[in-house]
Amino acid sequence: MNINVGLIGFGTVGSGVVKILQSNHGLIEKRLGASIVLKKIADRDIHSPKPIQVDRSLLTTEVNEVLDDPEISIVIELIGGYEPAKTFILRAIENGKHVVTANKALLATHGQEIFAAAAKMRVDIGFEASVGGGIPVIKAIKEGLVADDIRSIFGIMNGTANYILSKMTNEGSSFEEALKDAQIRGYAEADPTLDVEGIDTVHKLAILISLAYGVHIRLEDIYTEGITKIEPIDLKFADEFGYNIKLLAISKNDERGVEARVHPTMIPKTHILSNVNGVYNAFQIMGDSVGHILLYGLGAGMMPAGSAVVSDLVDLSRNILYGSIRRVSPLSYQDYCMVPKSIIPIDELFSRYYFRFSAVDRPGVLSKISGILGQNNISISSVIQKGREIKGSVPIVMMTHEAREADVRRALAEIDKLDVVTDKTILIRIEHKEF
Amino acid sequence: MNINVGLIGFGTVGSGVVKILQSNHGLIEKRLGASIVLKKIADRDIHSPKPIQVDRSLLTTEVNEVLDDPEISIVIELIGGYEPAKTFILRAIENGKHVVTANKALLATHGQEIFAAAAKMRVDIGFEASVGGGIPVIKAIKEGLVADDIRSIFGIMNGTANYILSKMTNEGSSFEEALKDAQIRGYAEADPTLDVEGIDTVHKLAILISLAYGVHIRLEDIYTEGITKIEPIDLKFADEFGYNIKLLAISKNDERGVEARVHPTMIPKTHILSNVNGVYNAFQIMGDSVGHILLYGLGAGMMPAGSAVVSDLVDLSRNILYGSIRRVSPLSYQDYCMVPKSIIPIDELFSRYYFRFSAVDRPGVLSKISGILGQNNISISSVIQKGREIKGSVPIVMMTHEAREADVRRALAEIDKLDVVTDKTILIRIEHKEF
Repeated sequence: MNINVGLIGFGTVGSGVVKILQSNHGLIEKRLGASIVLKKIADRDIHSPKPIQVDRSLLTTEVNEVLDDPEISIVIELIGGYEPAKTFILRAIENGKHVVTANKALLATHGQEIFAAAAKMRVDIGFEASVGGGIPVIKAIKEGLVADDIRSIFGIMNGTANYILSKMTNEGSSFEEALKDAQIRGYAEADPTLDVEGIDTVHKLAILISLAYGVHIRLEDIYTEGITKIEPIDLKFADEFGYNIKLLAISKNDERGVEARVHPTMIPKTHILSNVNGVYNAFQIMGDSVGHILLYGLGAGMMPAGSAVVSDLVDLSRNILYGSIRRVSPLSYQDYCMVPKSIIPIDELFSRYYFRFSAVDRPGVLSKISGILGQNNISISSVIQKGREIKGSVPIVMMTHEAREADVRRALAEIDKLDVVTDKTILIRIEHKEF
Repeated sequence: MNINVGLIGFGTVGSGVVKILQSNHGLIEKRLGASIVLKKIADRDIHSPKPIQVDRSLLTTEVNEVLDDPEISIVIELIGGYEPAKTFILRAIENGKHVVTANKALLATHGQEIFAAAAKMRVDIGFEASVGGGIPVIKAIKEGLVADDIRSIFGIMNGTANYILSKMTNEGSSFEEALKDAQIRGYAEADPTLDVEGIDTVHKLAILISLAYGVHIRLEDIYTEGITKIEPIDLKFADEFGYNIKLLAISKNDERGVEARVHPTMIPKTHILSNVNGVYNAFQIMGDSVGHILLYGLGAGMMPAGSAVVSDLVDLSRNILYGSIRRVSPLSYQDYCMVPKSIIPIDELFSRYYFRFSAVDRPGVLSKISGILGQNNISISSVIQKGREIKGSVPIVMMTHEAREADVRRALAEIDKLDVVTDKTILIRIEHKEF
């Protein structure tokens, strides 16, 4: 038996999908017991050279030849972005086709509408490639940990940002130098905003939160901070304290509610996530029964993302073959069990903090700063004040005990107004619990 | 709708299953859309206290009350061992019941018979808990990596052995001391043979090999060496060379054939598996598309193994609800695609090696030893000879370039016969490729 699929978007990931369907066709058939046939590829530009050779009769610029072909059961959307991707996906669903997509931005932003349409039409949606590339983290949450009350997710979810931070840490380069290197190697795009500002990570975290806790959240409620303000000096101080800095996605779910945030985070060097370097991604998930598990691998790229897309194709093909459509609810929880939920505001966060103050080298400065911290209930656990003068100021570095974010913000606003303080204070949150 | 299940074996893992089905009952129902009802628990000893309270009417000493109950759809076998577990599983299958088991020894040894019976009766078998405890490694191979030609598996698959080696490494303790500590903490059994001799690891590796490559192998063909001969001095030398020693399960599948072996292995400290400590397990799997992925977590214990068993229950329940029995082939490949395959004999292995010679402290010894190595095509990459005399001999430590195991064995047999060599030479294989 054949399962006919159509592809929209013959770019990097699309080419990976085509390559896998070509080279592992027999292998996949041995596992599935049926054949996946790529019937049509729609792309705006079918004339420029592609990394993968296909029979030209497969190619079309007309997306309707995929969306309206009654023989195509599964539509793969790999053009990315909001439009026309959303329109194409919704049209595929209306036509009763199952959908596989890697589009995290779209699902994180318009997921409710898309999943509702799929529920109404009783079709399936696969989106394993939207988070963690080829790492089967979505399947792990939806099926592997189905018995567990998931309590937290910690992740390095963006390979570009992780590559830049790894390079800055290992080679002492500046953010700009590391970014340039990432761009030359093809790890970062010309406009790297989505990656370095943490937006891509937020999209992925939002998807995982829905699956893990069965909640609909508002994307804009997730506190987000990128890595553009990290300086080599902060990585050096982190190192002196025994920490690395990673762009972490953090989410917890307990009696207080759902916590979700994305920001540069100091983690102990002995923490398992601390040793995830370069373009690798990692997901540390804690369930009430399973304890901590970690999934690690390449989070992006033609072949890893292609692997995830094809694994979804096989999953949906099995459902088609066995008549078990929506056997696993696309969002893990049955649709009627999904509830809207607010995220705890960042002001109510309790965390340990790293501060780097820029101050003039004058007696009494340390006392002034620590005085303000004390008045705001922030207790200091260690201080480094070193003679290195940078642009007329010395850096004073502090690590705090657990403090409330609102108190921290109030204190720093006050400190940054002091005339002995020459620059905006750098704040980095610390996760001190080891695996 | 209710799915009725019956449990045979109310020990540690059985108690974990019962606890999860009690405490996460509502949560699982929200995901599955149906209710899993534990209808009967058969155990030889229902009178001694159990860690989990259940309604006494559920308990029976009569296993037939589970195996013959027409209302029970899924039988969970958690008594372990070969018999009567095998008989119970085969009877459950004959009665048309689906089976969930954590019994790696049984599946590795009698798997072909059991899987054939299940295929004949068109019932499902879930065995996620048999490898890696709560880590969903079996689902990852069967479904997450379904698009990939799997090229290799490297794993730390036994928490007991890993705990002992970690303790020996970190604290300099002897094997006996570390084992005793593991026994006190409940990580090792009174008779630790299965764990420390690598047998449990071989069982798990054999299961993963079937799933990954679609082959039936003979268990006795897997070269197996335990950790009982590892001495603190070898861990110290490993450390000096920048390595750790782990009990690794290694399998590769390429044009040469299938390689499979379990033995203490030196891996660079920078290797991701090098930092897997204590009772944790980790599986590093390489697919042709996905690249390297790693799954990490607790490989055993009441709750992690319980989590895996219940995830299987949910998986099989979905198949029952949707009429999609055997939607995923239990062995990943369609039954008619499984082929018998020999494992490349260990003699044909090419590897780097660590040797520790015990020799009398006399001029010319090093030349004699290295002469024999040279005659056998074994080239030395580094040597440490230190003055420390132990029982009248000095240790001479060497690392080699890649050599053939047969050559190594011949050379060592010759060297161990030298009158200047006072004890059997210690050999540890090295995996030098980093992640």
